[in-house]
Amino acid sequence: MPKNAFYAQSGGVTAVINASACGVIETARQHPDKIGKVFAGRNGIIGALTEDLIDTSQESDEAIAALRYTPSGAFGSCRYKLKSLEANKREYERLIEVFRAHDIGYFFYNGGGDSADTCYKVSQLSEAMGYPIQAIHVPKTVDNDLPITDCCPGFGSVAKYIAVSTLEASFDVRSMAKTSTKVFVIEVMGRHAGWIAAAGALVADYGIPVVTLFPEIEFDEERFLAKVKQMYDQYGYCTVVVSEGCKYPDGRFIAEQGTRDAFGHAQLGGAAPVIANMLKERLGLKYHWAVADYLQRAARHIASRTDVEQAYAMGKAAVELALAGHNSVMPTVVRKSSKPYVWEVGHAPLAQVANVEKFMPREYISEDGYGITDACRDYLYPLIQGEDYPPYENGLPRYVTLKNAPVPKKLPEFSL
Amino acid sequence: MPKNAFYAQSGGVTAVINASACGVIETARQHPDKIGKVFAGRNGIIGALTEDLIDTSQESDEAIAALRYTPSGAFGSCRYKLKSLEANKREYERLIEVFRAHDIGYFFYNGGGDSADTCYKVSQLSEAMGYPIQAIHVPKTVDNDLPITDCCPGFGSVAKYIAVSTLEASFDVRSMAKTSTKVFVIEVMGRHAGWIAAAGALVADYGIPVVTLFPEIEFDEERFLAKVKQMYDQYGYCTVVVSEGCKYPDGRFIAEQGTRDAFGHAQLGGAAPVIANMLKERLGLKYHWAVADYLQRAARHIASRTDVEQAYAMGKAAVELALAGHNSVMPTVVRKSSKPYVWEVGHAPLAQVANVEKFMPREYISEDGYGITDACRDYLYPLIQGEDYPPYENGLPRYVTLKNAPVPKKLPEFSL
Repeated sequence: MPKNAFYAQSGGVTAVINASACGVIETARQHPDKIGKVFAGRNGIIGALTEDLIDTSQESDEAIAALRYTPSGAFGSCRYKLKSLEANKREYERLIEVFRAHDIGYFFYNGGGDSADTCYKVSQLSEAMGYPIQAIHVPKTVDNDLPITDCCPGFGSVAKYIAVSTLEASFDVRSMAKTSTKVFVIEVMGRHAGWIAAAGALVADYGIPVVTLFPEIEFDEERFLAKVKQMYDQYGYCTVVVSEGCKYPDGRFIAEQGTRDAFGHAQLGGAAPVIANMLKERLGLKYHWAVADYLQRAARHIASRTDVEQAYAMGKAAVELALAGHNSVMPTVVRKSSKPYVWEVGHAPLAQVANVEKFMPREYISEDGYGITDACRDYLYPLIQGEDYPPYENGLPRYVTLKNAPVPKKLPEFSL
Repeated sequence: MPKNAFYAQSGGVTAVINASACGVIETARQHPDKIGKVFAGRNGIIGALTEDLIDTSQESDEAIAALRYTPSGAFGSCRYKLKSLEANKREYERLIEVFRAHDIGYFFYNGGGDSADTCYKVSQLSEAMGYPIQAIHVPKTVDNDLPITDCCPGFGSVAKYIAVSTLEASFDVRSMAKTSTKVFVIEVMGRHAGWIAAAGALVADYGIPVVTLFPEIEFDEERFLAKVKQMYDQYGYCTVVVSEGCKYPDGRFIAEQGTRDAFGHAQLGGAAPVIANMLKERLGLKYHWAVADYLQRAARHIASRTDVEQAYAMGKAAVELALAGHNSVMPTVVRKSSKPYVWEVGHAPLAQVANVEKFMPREYISEDGYGITDACRDYLYPLIQGEDYPPYENGLPRYVTLKNAPVPKKLPEFSL
């Protein structure tokens, strides 16, 4: 009897993480001699710990194929990081109990840097605790901050969404600037890395005056105001892209302005309204601002075809790496050329991936710190190429919600 | 010599106002015997007052055709309302001077309720001041609050954007709710009318627990919290759609919470963060929130095909009404049937359109005030039918920026 596989989604979900799930499950289904059922963890690793498994074999081929164009995490995700083997041996023993009870020999974990750490720890179970398991990490993060891989599935689509949305909103403010809004501020995700903000900066190629604030560059209020003023004086309007991770030199986030609500509670208002208010107070410019938040990472309707293909390929490659006998690795996107864009699948040891963040290199950011360089353009454009529209029905995308039938439990309960 | 035409865009721009411009200009070009050149006002009526006219005859057929899929106002818009003839005769005399200098006999004004008022005043110039002009208003507003017409071009596309985005973000929070975000709050436009919010409420049809706050319903904090709590207890997560125009019974906007920034300035933070903070403080629910702002009304990438077709048809009909001898009218969308959706072009006198706002009828809002009824669904779904994707190049939409060549001035300057 072939071993079963465990697959789970971890961390913030994306427009294409289900495309990776689709790649894992469809590829596993092509190898019934080597892989039994694929059990998905309900809400990530928590599903493994609590033996809350989903039997994906009960989903039709059509439903699994629909994952390719359905955003979010179809099996539920989680923010839960395993402690070290020394600090919490109980959790690892439980994982082995669950794996053994359900005859699981393959562990596919779909997430970012923190999740790669969890996957890495599971991959050590064979050696450390004598349970044979092959653990493969499937890369995913809109923040694009995983090392080694050229890019991370999820990023290309959010980059496309932010570039398109910033372009559209900039056309809007350009139309209105004569008598109304002069600056438009859009806040983007990306944690400590400016990759998503860089995608907003692409609109400069369409003649839009844009000032971009990267987390990699310390925020200097006076220089920033001078830059916006210069842009505004020249063009009559200006777009500002601000990354949620931008900080003052003393480490305070722009969003943390000591603002209090009527009850004296700290106001978590986002960086965009803070920047917008600053431009009004200091430069007298009428503003509009937007915080896209989840809209950006869930925007499957404007996904990058390149990103969807890579997300699927990473899921597929994870299964193929497992079948080839690998453990403790992550498939990667290897860029062979930017013009024309040529990429292939590689892989990297998890020991080199876990807990490492990849930031924007300084040479991708323009000298003044408010834009991107040609090297950055060459990097970004291939990743937003192509559209991959979901099917529509009655005016809305026909996204799938799976049955998510539970696998009968065999073990006593476990408290997290 | 046929008379020339004046066309201008007014008020907040939309994803499809340029499709109406396309309809006006393409139709005018088909009647060179009756209409000379189409001069566009740079920044709306201000372009007429300051004799800042754009010669659209210098744009190629291809460029004009590209307006159909380009969001924003290609000629610039304005927020500027003409006073009454009695209060500011000087402006009307100037308009006639400009019209006469450029031999303008047709006036097409593309906007919402305030703009219809401007167009109405211009339409009275023939009678009041003896200058022969035919003024036709081309309807446009994402707020969908113009009377008589079944819907307003611009609304269907923003409705589709909000329905799709709310669906996608709701799938996201559903994935995350086990260990992270429990409620997602999205703020939508619409001024004093809840039409756009109603589009967000459509996600209930996809199994999403959603609580919608309409400006037509007084905000009752305790009832709202009870409703969200009930949804959360049942589903484990909840989406809240809040209209920017929502108010407390005393008339205060939700967004106006007396919040002050570190300098003591009133913080204009939007309604979404206020609602999100309320849910955290009172129900202890971890939140995410989004304010789409201009992104929603500029989102041509996810425009409704129905909306694009109607926007074009309204522009075309405006010219045809003028050629048929009409003055002081607005073409309208007349719904003949919802299932199947059948509509035709009608027209209404501007005297009945100007300065009238159309709100959501109470029978479109569910009894508890937090959702929509089947009657509302029957109204909304036809308006978001069909996709009409712009062409892409290098990963981004190929939106057009016109040359906007100025018409040589013939008159002395005029100060506004």
